[in-house]
Amino acid sequence: MIRGDLIGKSVILDGTKLSLEEAAYSLERKQITLFEEGIKLELRAFLKRASSILPKFELRFLVFKDIRDRGYYLKAGPLDFRVYPRGVKSGTGESRYIIHVLSEREPIAVDMILQDLELSENLKKRLLYAVVDEEGDITYYEIKRRDISGSAPPVELSDSVNGDLLDERVMIWNDSTLSELNERWWFGRLIEETRLQLSFVESAYLIEKGSLMLTDPEGEVLNLERFIEISSAIEGNFVKKYLTYRDLRDRGMVVKTGFKFGSHFRVYEEIPGETSYHSRYLVHVLIDDREVRLPEISRAVRLAHGVRKQMIFAVILDERVEYFEARWMRL
Amino acid sequence: MIRGDLIGKSVILDGTKLSLEEAAYSLERKQITLFEEGIKLELRAFLKRASSILPKFELRFLVFKDIRDRGYYLKAGPLDFRVYPRGVKSGTGESRYIIHVLSEREPIAVDMILQDLELSENLKKRLLYAVVDEEGDITYYEIKRRDISGSAPPVELSDSVNGDLLDERVMIWNDSTLSELNERWWFGRLIEETRLQLSFVESAYLIEKGSLMLTDPEGEVLNLERFIEISSAIEGNFVKKYLTYRDLRDRGMVVKTGFKFGSHFRVYEEIPGETSYHSRYLVHVLIDDREVRLPEISRAVRLAHGVRKQMIFAVILDERVEYFEARWMRL
Repeated sequence: MIRGDLIGKSVILDGTKLSLEEAAYSLERKQITLFEEGIKLELRAFLKRASSILPKFELRFLVFKDIRDRGYYLKAGPLDFRVYPRGVKSGTGESRYIIHVLSEREPIAVDMILQDLELSENLKKRLLYAVVDEEGDITYYEIKRRDISGSAPPVELSDSVNGDLLDERVMIWNDSTLSELNERWWFGRLIEETRLQLSFVESAYLIEKGSLMLTDPEGEVLNLERFIEISSAIEGNFVKKYLTYRDLRDRGMVVKTGFKFGSHFRVYEEIPGETSYHSRYLVHVLIDDREVRLPEISRAVRLAHGVRKQMIFAVILDERVEYFEARWMRL
Repeated sequence: MIRGDLIGKSVILDGTKLSLEEAAYSLERKQITLFEEGIKLELRAFLKRASSILPKFELRFLVFKDIRDRGYYLKAGPLDFRVYPRGVKSGTGESRYIIHVLSEREPIAVDMILQDLELSENLKKRLLYAVVDEEGDITYYEIKRRDISGSAPPVELSDSVNGDLLDERVMIWNDSTLSELNERWWFGRLIEETRLQLSFVESAYLIEKGSLMLTDPEGEVLNLERFIEISSAIEGNFVKKYLTYRDLRDRGMVVKTGFKFGSHFRVYEEIPGETSYHSRYLVHVLIDDREVRLPEISRAVRLAHGVRKQMIFAVILDERVEYFEARWMRL
């Protein structure tokens, strides 16, 4: 058996440097023996030592072991590990993934996600988040920037329509463009063929396009600014939701509420019914643009997977909207 | 056509009082005409008037109309409406449900849920939440108190075991009770048949039962209080999660992480494998015990439904834990 020595933050073995994870893995498989300052370290003692030397060692080792046990070769950096395609060892080929090891418990910074995405694009590697739950089970998510768009025609009404603002909804009555708005562009919900009920994001969009004259109960006509003020008082996150809605509509997609799926929007790439009624995406806006909790991502991805949709998260950056997909991944 | 008059908050019709929702419904079906101080009100004008007279009228009318259109009779109170079984009209039978009309957008008070549950139990009616999303679609949830329990035997170890606290997990080594803990009571996760990794809630439970001697990296033995302190520093909500975990275990259930399902716990009614490996419940602890957002409930219920589990929410009341189920309901 080869002897290794724990020196500083690595193990020296026959003149080669092993990471602590590599050393623990070999030690567990009884391929090496380990010493620190002449004293032999068994696995239990070594894991304790390594945990105290290296932050996150315990999480990293769980992931290292899981990936090696699945038959992949991996080595340290640039986030936590690079993983090579099956059958490829370091030095003989290119790595395919970069892996960031995360604990289910820590909220993660949205900025970190954006930086990781940039890094993975620069390196031309796929980005995986290995999320360790409290029992040590690991779920892998592939994170990918998405530039989604669709083929729905831009909204162009010949005339603007008139609407009433009720409590929390907007109603359009007896208007010739009413069924056009609904059938052609999938705005609102038609009630008894006599009136069209619009959501607040839909109404804001039509006001901004100059296609809706909206009157409040006192008879005042509401411009976009005033309407956004009213909407924001009812729903604190209205502005971020609206910016995302507008961006998605402008990208040629049909956007409806995702409430039943626990996301902000369900999104169709074309007018529903032309070739299918299936919304391809669920889009959830990261309202808190500083941090996000992993159980939230897990829940959304799981739900989207169950209904055969892609889970997209939207981040608002100075009024620009960026999208990234999170996808459950079997390594 | 019968003539009705809008007076105050109701419509008087042939000497009978109609609620505003009933009046709007009849007006829409052209069964009545409506006047206010001698001036005729068409549907559009009446809906605007009613919205300004009655808070939540617009939401209530959406729900009233939806339920009537499904062929049920309903009338006002005690929350928003009582609904009668199909074929039964008020006066000729007992109502079956009490309905609370809620907007997807408002956070709801946990206290309100508990009060609604109490009311429904006192009245011996089933409680439904009619949640109106931003497009006016309605989802019905039945809310029910649940007194769940299981048949897993209480944890009794002949000897206490020794464990190491690593970063975020606890490891037990070479102990004769190791596989017993894992196989008999489903604690932890067995690694390479040599060590058992426990989650923090499991560790706290075993410490409290006097079955685990836990040592930190400096060799200090940790009592429950100290361990909870450490765990809470890593995970802010640890205490509430632990109180729920302990209560569920004490009720004879096997409790494992629900991370993959976006909930705190998945819960088995018996030791998995005895007759099945299916966890019957997902349990999510309401960490904020003041209010909860409906999209969160919607998401959890949808996900649970998709994996054929019952969605249970736990509320901590002075260290006592109460459970209620939320179930998607087709009226």
